[in-house]
Amino acid sequence: MGRVAATDGMSLAAVERLQDAGHEVVLQHFSPEELLSGVLSNFDAVVVRSSTKMTSDSIHASRNEAGGIGFIGRAGVGVDNIDLAAASNCGVVVCNTPGASTRSVVELTIGHLIASTRHIPKADRTLRSGEWAKKSLRGSELGGKSLGMIGFGRIARGVGEVASTLGMNLHAFDPYISSDVTESSHCIFHDEVDELFRLCTHISIHCNLSEETQHLVNSDRLALMSGVGADGTPCGNHIVNCSRGGIVDEAAVLSALESGQLSSVALDVFEVEPPGENPLLNHADFHGSPHIGSATLEAQDRVGEEMAGLLIDYFNGIRPSSTIN
Amino acid sequence: MGRVAATDGMSLAAVERLQDAGHEVVLQHFSPEELLSGVLSNFDAVVVRSSTKMTSDSIHASRNEAGGIGFIGRAGVGVDNIDLAAASNCGVVVCNTPGASTRSVVELTIGHLIASTRHIPKADRTLRSGEWAKKSLRGSELGGKSLGMIGFGRIARGVGEVASTLGMNLHAFDPYISSDVTESSHCIFHDEVDELFRLCTHISIHCNLSEETQHLVNSDRLALMSGVGADGTPCGNHIVNCSRGGIVDEAAVLSALESGQLSSVALDVFEVEPPGENPLLNHADFHGSPHIGSATLEAQDRVGEEMAGLLIDYFNGIRPSSTIN
Repeated sequence: MGRVAATDGMSLAAVERLQDAGHEVVLQHFSPEELLSGVLSNFDAVVVRSSTKMTSDSIHASRNEAGGIGFIGRAGVGVDNIDLAAASNCGVVVCNTPGASTRSVVELTIGHLIASTRHIPKADRTLRSGEWAKKSLRGSELGGKSLGMIGFGRIARGVGEVASTLGMNLHAFDPYISSDVTESSHCIFHDEVDELFRLCTHISIHCNLSEETQHLVNSDRLALMSGVGADGTPCGNHIVNCSRGGIVDEAAVLSALESGQLSSVALDVFEVEPPGENPLLNHADFHGSPHIGSATLEAQDRVGEEMAGLLIDYFNGIRPSSTIN
Repeated sequence: MGRVAATDGMSLAAVERLQDAGHEVVLQHFSPEELLSGVLSNFDAVVVRSSTKMTSDSIHASRNEAGGIGFIGRAGVGVDNIDLAAASNCGVVVCNTPGASTRSVVELTIGHLIASTRHIPKADRTLRSGEWAKKSLRGSELGGKSLGMIGFGRIARGVGEVASTLGMNLHAFDPYISSDVTESSHCIFHDEVDELFRLCTHISIHCNLSEETQHLVNSDRLALMSGVGADGTPCGNHIVNCSRGGIVDEAAVLSALESGQLSSVALDVFEVEPPGENPLLNHADFHGSPHIGSATLEAQDRVGEEMAGLLIDYFNGIRPSSTIN
């Protein structure tokens, strides 16, 4: 039977499921100093969200002669806060819960797309200030336009399904996609990301942050966008990012909003979070949200369920399905 | 050849199409006094949006011994500004352009639904004010919930298609729907509108304003909503109205927001427009837009195209397809 530390919280249902399977769960947050002092070496596994940083030193401190932790679970998707190389060197399995938040991020992306093209936050802002801005809030439809998706993992596929129902044409760039996906999907795949910017008036980001994708959305690429929809409507150019901050160059999109090259920018993620003083946030055609892509009741419940299942497999000697390293 | 007055504007493409067919188009707005003085009696047809009010008196003043206007075109859907009985008595044909804005209203409805469940306007508001409200903005997914549509015309059908792709269950109430629609649709139809409120956590309005539908969304019905989604999630109750003001009792939804019976209200239409001083507009869980359902480039272009076609049919002695009276 295993002993699990959940340092950034865990849903009650997940705790109960682990206890029913005979495991012990300790819900307690530890400071970086406590982690370095080896407080986790009395546990068999640790489950973190984004607050707890499992650095190389804290991973080594969590091991001892008897073993210590052999499993690090990330309740969520991004494993930026876990030193994967150090974990692998120590023989520690790292898992995340990649599917749990898919639907939540898909819905937020569609929400941000329509909020952009129909000026929903600006509409509400003017209404609250007593202005009836009906005449100045003319928008455009998503139907008939081309959506360019950078990355075509499960979130992009879900976004594509809804966008297709809305009547959009789908284009994608994903150098890591397998050919069975490209064959089965109603989406045109491109070998060069620049093609998406040339062909699409609406771009949505669905990839990880890496050296390759850092500032992938930059001034040069924004300049390629035509502002004229596939149906001939002068709908302008629109960027949505609900994946990771840093992929969109915030200074570049601000300039493009100012010059009119972009008609809207919607961001759920930022280069620095919280973004602090950032002139982009005050542009009339920008709107944003504070990294709430997976902040739904359903996603959080699924994260817990999925993590409990991964831990039970691990303790039963089965390699957990979402093992990363 | 016909002489057409377009008193609230007309798209250039539509004007050109009418001119190419040999008709004359005068783009000029007339005051109520000018209408009563018979200024339209020199025309064969008039095309209005919502600004020009074709009252009984102004319709009679637009007729003369030689005939005067025989056609009133409403560039849009609602004909509240045209006295249909007076038009019929004078033998004047009244047409609207019912299909032109469908897709635009569908998209805005979906946008308002997601903006409600994911707090998009509030997220943007807090972000602009320098607050990182990630923790307080937990939302819920539309997927797995039941959407109740009041009215099941072409807009509701479009909304249902997208909602279904998002994973929602569809319920509808529409006493005027034909049985071939109810049989072909993936939607459960109810004989009592109260059933929608009992079964659905998300209600969207897609009917006309009439004595029958005035304040149809009232305190008694709101009290029937359970706040627990079809998937068991305590997602709260949500109301969206992109159809006509007056169907939702604004005082009732404000009380329900205050008591927590409603988690969100999103309105594109109001009992009085502009709504002026209205405490509903300042509630944190309300958001709205200034009647922009059909305010897109595409819908306005389609309105013009459709109206030009109706006028050309009329002048050719063909009964226009969207004749209302």
